[in-house]
Parts: sequence; structure tokens; C-alpha cells
Amino acid sequence: MRVRLGELSERLAGEFVGDPELTVTRIGPLDSADRETISFLANPRYQSQLAGSAAGCIIVGPGLREAAAARGATIVCDDPYLAFARLTQWWAGQSRARPEPGIHPTAVVEAGARIDAAASIGPMAFVGRGARIAAGAVIAAQSHVGAGAMVGEGTVLEPRVVLGEGCRIGARGLVHSGAVIGADGFGFAPTEGRWEKIEQLGSVVIGDDVEVGANTCIDRGALEDTVIEDGVKLDNLIQIGHNVHIGAHCAFAGCVGVAGSARIGRHCTAGGGAMILGHLEIVDHVHITAATVVSRSIRKPGQYSGSFPFDDNASWEKNAATLRQLHTLRERLRALERKRSFSEE
Amino acid sequence: MRVRLGELSERLAGEFVGDPELTVTRIGPLDSADRETISFLANPRYQSQLAGSAAGCIIVGPGLREAAAARGATIVCDDPYLAFARLTQWWAGQSRARPEPGIHPTAVVEAGARIDAAASIGPMAFVGRGARIAAGAVIAAQSHVGAGAMVGEGTVLEPRVVLGEGCRIGARGLVHSGAVIGADGFGFAPTEGRWEKIEQLGSVVIGDDVEVGANTCIDRGALEDTVIEDGVKLDNLIQIGHNVHIGAHCAFAGCVGVAGSARIGRHCTAGGGAMILGHLEIVDHVHITAATVVSRSIRKPGQYSGSFPFDDNASWEKNAATLRQLHTLRERLRALERKRSFSEE
Amino acid sequence: MRVRLGELSERLAGEFVGDPELTVTRIGPLDSADRETISFLANPRYQSQLAGSAAGCIIVGPGLREAAAARGATIVCDDPYLAFARLTQWWAGQSRARPEPGIHPTAVVEAGARIDAAASIGPMAFVGRGARIAAGAVIAAQSHVGAGAMVGEGTVLEPRVVLGEGCRIGARGLVHSGAVIGADGFGFAPTEGRWEKIEQLGSVVIGDDVEVGANTCIDRGALEDTVIEDGVKLDNLIQIGHNVHIGAHCAFAGCVGVAGSARIGRHCTAGGGAMILGHLEIVDHVHITAATVVSRSIRKPGQYSGSFPFDDNASWEKNAATLRQLHTLRERLRALERKRSFSEE
Repeated sequence: MRVRLGELSERLAGEFVGDPELTVTRIGPLDSADRETISFLANPRYQSQLAGSAAGCIIVGPGLREAAAARGATIVCDDPYLAFARLTQWWAGQSRARPEPGIHPTAVVEAGARIDAAASIGPMAFVGRGARIAAGAVIAAQSHVGAGAMVGEGTVLEPRVVLGEGCRIGARGLVHSGAVIGADGFGFAPTEGRWEKIEQLGSVVIGDDVEVGANTCIDRGALEDTVIEDGVKLDNLIQIGHNVHIGAHCAFAGCVGVAGSARIGRHCTAGGGAMILGHLEIVDHVHITAATVVSRSIRKPGQYSGSFPFDDNASWEKNAATLRQLHTLRERLRALERKRSFSEE
Repeated sequence: MRVRLGELSERLAGEFVGDPELTVTRIGPLDSADRETISFLANPRYQSQLAGSAAGCIIVGPGLREAAAARGATIVCDDPYLAFARLTQWWAGQSRARPEPGIHPTAVVEAGARIDAAASIGPMAFVGRGARIAAGAVIAAQSHVGAGAMVGEGTVLEPRVVLGEGCRIGARGLVHSGAVIGADGFGFAPTEGRWEKIEQLGSVVIGDDVEVGANTCIDRGALEDTVIEDGVKLDNLIQIGHNVHIGAHCAFAGCVGVAGSARIGRHCTAGGGAMILGHLEIVDHVHITAATVVSRSIRKPGQYSGSFPFDDNASWEKNAATLRQLHTLRERLRALERKRSFSEE
Repeated sequence: MRVRLGELSERLAGEFVGDPELTVTRIGPLDSADRETISFLANPRYQSQLAGSAAGCIIVGPGLREAAAARGATIVCDDPYLAFARLTQWWAGQSRARPEPGIHPTAVVEAGARIDAAASIGPMAFVGRGARIAAGAVIAAQSHVGAGAMVGEGTVLEPRVVLGEGCRIGARGLVHSGAVIGADGFGFAPTEGRWEKIEQLGSVVIGDDVEVGANTCIDRGALEDTVIEDGVKLDNLIQIGHNVHIGAHCAFAGCVGVAGSARIGRHCTAGGGAMILGHLEIVDHVHITAATVVSRSIRKPGQYSGSFPFDDNASWEKNAATLRQLHTLRERLRALERKRSFSEE
């Protein structure tokens, strides 16, 4: 794909500096860019990378206009990172084929499913009885939409997704391959040393503009629904337990686990591998550092952390061994302090 | 679904207080219940919630009979949580359609597979040569049963499960979507800087009444079998390495990892994200707290823990930095103690 | 399968001691071996197990030749563990059916896909337009190869794998069920409290001799490619973020997470559950202990660790509580040290 810089600048509503007839053929990072590449610089701290880049055009913020223009074609945008995001969206829209509407002949659609004429059901996909697929939605090859489930307008289930019976996802969503929405929550009553199944009678309700990563699991609720509000972004291999409620515009990185009945506010983030235990509440605007175990409710916005600092193995072993006696260390310190204060009397 | 309270009470073998002709249409938690809801209260600590609930009927234990009866219809059971579990089972049995027996025309069944007439093989499912599917078993849409694998009576593989070649699962099991049973264990011999594959010649053998969560993986053994005994419950996104042996009635929460050749006793539990390292033994009745790394054998029943306590980021940073010098802190304390005892002489 | 010991010894290029006409029917561990079993002893520390084993034949290194020969048939190899690995490979090759070349009638192959006549496309597999499948490759049942993707010679995608659009894997690879290669990397630009999608325009490029575990995810790059070099072995449920670069012959155990743009050298290993944060570099020959969180670059080869030492719950609680005050403990110690040195003046 070859694109005129002038056209790109117009699409990004930027101010263009340079020759608008120049063209680029790809988007790339500054350091590996060539004359055919459009790149961007969002963080003024990296201004020094400007001069050395061979990029055909660079998107920058107003503060870097002169420095960027000095080296060649430039698009100036208020928020260059956002402009870059929109550029990738436009680029993908131009270069990727959107599946044709219609139902592939190898798909299995049960009686009573309602599929909009402008939806696309891919090869060997399954849509159960009573399911509803809205206009522009894509159920890609080998995906599974259970009975009574609902897929909103323009939402895409990538190949090999499961959206379980009765579960719902809103508009403009994107669910990556292998994700399982609506498996049973993990609920058992102990009885005489065995586990008696508590059937999970709730469902999963997902809002608009939600992205669900590859092989991520969102369990159905026990009695009521598991809820993911609008704009939430979940990375890969995340576990969301039953009856969890995730507020709008949260973003969780890969391998995060959220145990049953946790209630998380809006605009929260969690780094990779963080574990949020069950039956707790987290207010809006809480940010959990990677690999942190959140074991109690968080009532105050802010950044929270809790991973063991890694070290070379020998140092770690010594510190870890000492850590196991930390409590006695404190006792010994206290004893010394007491003696000290006696001897000062 | 509308059900008479009298009928429910009989099914739960409970003592009924109130008008047995009253009806309910759903099961729900106490706090969001209305007159159409049957609810339960298992933990006497929450007795205060009784009076405020609008539930049409509440299942309680004998100790709360008077308090519950004072507010309306009540079912008294010895173990109200267990009664609730059984109620959900009965409810699900009434309200969910069980798939029809038979083989869907789009399923691929290889020659030599033996499928009981009372089993159900869903759309686009695969059953390999020599596999055996017992009566009442359900191989849901797009699931995969490898050659020579065995599925016991009444066991359900939800959509898009893989049960690998030669693997076996017993009766009344439930395997959720995306689970992979019987992928190769992770075994390689190092040679000249490369890894030489050790073919995994064992299998996976799973007992009766086992539940396997969504996207959970259970690897086949290297030479002998990986074994999951009766009644084990595994949540989502769990990794079970090759040659692991999990004793009966264990229950592991999501994101748990069990490395190769670990041998875990009966009636153990593990919280979410716990990691159990390989080649170790854990006795019966051991309970591992969430996010704990079990790095050596556990010989004594009890609760074991080991996660870093989380904190606001600033406090964590200070403590983590200090932790990296913990060993020297102990040395300094020792030095002070020695000086102290000298000065006391 | 019944095999003459003489034949096995020749295949392993070992020195045979005993009666070459004896036969075995299985490979097994020393402790459960019987006369029909061939076993191996790689670690001289376990020499004491030799005498007690009933194995029909044992593979040992030169140092154990006499001890092993004293008890029965023996194959002496320079590297008995490697010989064992090769024995399992030969055994699997004999005992497992390789799928027939050809395209199963239920597979869906789009126009413009190029499939070598010696490749095998299984039941209900999907191969997109422009994809290329090399000779000897196996796309097993229900797997998915996206448009323009490439699968190298002899590489096997087990049932229900996704290899996304335009992604490439080299020769002799093995991808286990449920793996998702080429889902979108997790990239969003924040704007007014929402997340704006950064389309992921890169791909995934995987070298030769790579193994990818069940339900493992390898995301496509944002602008450039995510790269997995030759000989890398990834266990199950691993998350590899966008733009990650993993050097040749690394091996990562289950549940490892590698965040975006991390650059990992060659011959590195990571134990189960380790988390490697993004935008950092790790040199060659670094070994990360299980459950360690790597939060900064590692410039020096060696072993690195960082998990909280587990303990019985009561001890852990006391130590964890103290840990949260560790910084003040250090201050108190410092104060004591200062007083001490004053009093010594």
C-alpha cells in the first residue's frame, strides 16, 4: 500500500510540514524506519532519536514541530500517540479484507438463531438456537456462539472463540481466538470430603467496545451475571471468575486473575500476572503493578504493588532465608531497643 | 420456570415452614431477592441479612429456623449450603436442554470408534479411531476426542475441548471449553546447546466426577501416565505437568500451575495462581493459599502461604529495596547484639 | 510393540552387554520396570537404584557399565539421557500413525492456498487464502491457518491450533492444541479516559525446531514482528507479548509471561510462572527461577530468583506483616547503630 503524506495528514487532522506528494508504504518505529516509512515520536524525552531517523515522515506533538521539520516531512498533532493509533486503524481498514456478509455453507446454524443479513458467519462456525448476531458482526471460522447468546453490532469473534449459552457481548467488541466466555464459575459445596457442584445459573454480560484476549476466560455467574462494562480491555490468558464486576475502561495485561465476586471500579489497570482475590472491592482509578497479589479491598485510588524483588540467585537465597525469620528479627531488634533505653536511664 | 415451594422443600428433604402453595421463579442471593426468589443463608454470621431480604423463601439451617420463619416461608435443612447446591442442580436439570443422543451429521467419526447409542456427538466434533464414548456422554460441538481415547458414562465435553489420543476420563465428568487434555509433557534432553525432544509416551488418566476448567491443560506423562483421581475439581487456566498425580477430591482455583512429577495427596486445595514445583510430594489435607510458590515437599497437613503483601507503591518500593539487603540487616543486628553482650560483661 | 535389545543398541549407537536376542515391549522408569521394560539411568547419584530394578535392560553412561552389567542386559552410551530421548523418538515413530498426506474432505481450504502434496490437512481444518503448507506438514483436525500464513516442512499443528493471518513457522516445529499464534498485541492509546485501539500490523515469525505448548499465546507485533528464533521450546499457557524477541534455544516452562518488546538472548530458561516485564533486555545464558518477576534488564549470565519463600500460614502471616514495616525496621536498626557508636566514643 502506497499513501500520499498529504492524505495521511488530512486524515489525522494534523498540520503538515513538507512535500505532501511524498509517499510512504509502511508504518514503523523510528529506529528501523526508512524513506518509505511513516513514524511517530510521542515522548519528548526521546527527541534525540529524531535527527538519526531515516523516516520519510514523523508524527510529532506541537513542542517538537521545529526539531522534526528540520529533518524532513512532519505531521504535527496535539496527541501524536493517539494520532498514531488512528493511523494504524485507518491502515488496517485499508489493507485488511473484511469478511463478506453471509453464512458460510459449512457453518452450522441452529433453528431459531437470528442472524442479521449484514453479519458474517465463517466456515465451520456454530450458532445455537435462539442466538442473535447483529449487523456487521463477524463470527469467524470455527467459533461457537451458544444457544440464546447475543453478539452486538460490528463485534468480531476471531477464529475458535466460545461465547457460551445465553451470554451477551455489545457493539464494536473484539474477542480473540481461544477465549472462552461463559464457562461455569468454580463453585462447590463441600460435603463429607467431596465437592457437590453448584450449578452456575447466571450468565456473562459484556458491554460495548470491549476487547477480550486470546485464551482468556470469563466465567458465568453463579446466580446473577458476571459483568464487564463498556470499553474494558483484557489481554491474553486472563481469568475472570464468576460474579466479578469490572467497571468501564479498565485494562488488564496478560495472565491476570480475578477471583469470584471481586468488584472492580472504573479506569483501573492491572499489570501482567497480577492476582486479585475474591469478594473484595477496588475503587475507580486503582493501578495494580504486575505480579501483585491484591488480597484485600482497595478504597483509595493510586498505584499498588507487591512483588518480591528479584536478584541473582545467591543473594535471593540469603535474603529469602532471612525473610523466613523476619518476625524474630523484629523481636531481637525490639529487645535491643529496650536494653538501650534501660541503659540510657 | 415457576415452582411450588412445597415441591422444592420435598426435593431438598427439608422441613417447610409457611404456605407450600407459594411459588418462586428464580434462585438468587439474599440482598437482591424479591418475592419470586428462593434464597439461602448458610453462614449464621450473616443472620442480620435475614430480616431485610424480600426473598419469597429462604433455606436456612436449624439454628436460624425461628429467625427465618418470623419473616416468611422457610426451608430448614441440616446443611443449607449443600441444599442450595442440590437446588441449583435440580434447577439446571429442569431448565437446561440436554443434547439429544446421536451423532450430528457434521461430526467426523473415524472407523473403529465405539459410540454408545445413548451418547451425543455434536456438530463438527471429531472422534478418532478406536475411541470409546459411553452412554449419556456428550461430546459437544467442535470438540475433539483423539484415537483410542475413552469418555465415561454421562461425562460432558463442552464445545471445543481436546481429549488427546489414548487419554481417559471416567464417569460424570465435566470438561469446559478450551481444555486440552493430553498435550505433550515438557521434556527435553540438552545436547550441545540444543534441546532434544523426549517423546511423551504416557497418557492422562482421569477418574470419575472430575471437573476440568476452561483452557486448563493436563499433559500426558513421559513414560507413565499423568493421573487425576476421582472427584478432583480444577478451575480455569490451570497447568498440570506430565506425570503429576493429584489425589482424590482436590480442588484447585484458577491459574494454578503444577510442575512435572509432583505428587499431591487427597483433599488438598490450592488458591488462585499458586505454583507447585516439580518432583515434590504433598500429603493429604494440605491447603495452599493463593499465589503461593510451593518449592519443596509438604509433609504435614495444614495451611501454607507465601505471597508478598501488597501495599501502596511508595511503601512497597521502600520495603522491597530494604528486602534486597535483608541479609546484611541481619548481620548488622547480630553485630549490635554481640557488642551489647560484650558491653554487659 | 516388541523390540530386540540388539536392534535398540544399534539404533542408539551404544555398546551392548548381554543377550541381544532378548526383547522389551515398553520404555519405563527404573522403579516400576519389569523384564519387558527398557529403562535408563542418567545421573550416577542414583546408582543405588540399579541393583533393585527389574528392568530387562538399562541404558547407562560409561561410568556405570560394570555396575549395570552385573545385573543384566545393558546399553552403554556416552550420554544416556540423550540416548533415552532418541529412544523415545524412535519408539514414537514406530508406534504412532503419521497422518496420511492429503486434504480431508471436510477441511475448508480457500482459493489461493498452496498445500504441498505431501502435507496433511485434517478433518474440519481451515487454511486461508494465500497460505502455504510445506511438505510433510500436518494441520490436524479443527486447526486454523490464516490467510497468507506459512507452515514449514514437517511442522505439526496439533488439533485446534490457530496460526493467524500472515504468521510463519519454520520446519520441524510442533504446536500443541489450543495455542494461538498471531492474536493482536495489547496496545491502546489512552484518550479522555478511554482506550483507543492501536491496530497490530506486525506478524509472528517462528524459526525451525520450535515447540509451542498447549493454550500458549504468541501475539503479533504492533509494527514489526514478534520473533521466536530456532530451537525455542515453550511449555503450556505461556503468554508472549507483541514485539518480543526470544533468542535461539530458550526453554520456558508453563505459565510464564513475557510482556511486550522484551528482548531475550539465546539459551535462556525460565521456570514455571516466571513473569518477564516489557521493554527490557536479557543477555544469553540467563536462567530465571520459577515464579520470579524480572522487572529490569539482566546484563550478566547466571541464575536469577525472586519468589516469596512459603511457610505454614501462621509463620507467613507474622513475617509478611513485619515485611510491610521492613523499612522502618531498617531505620530503627540504623538509629541503634548510631547511638551505639556515640556511646563508644
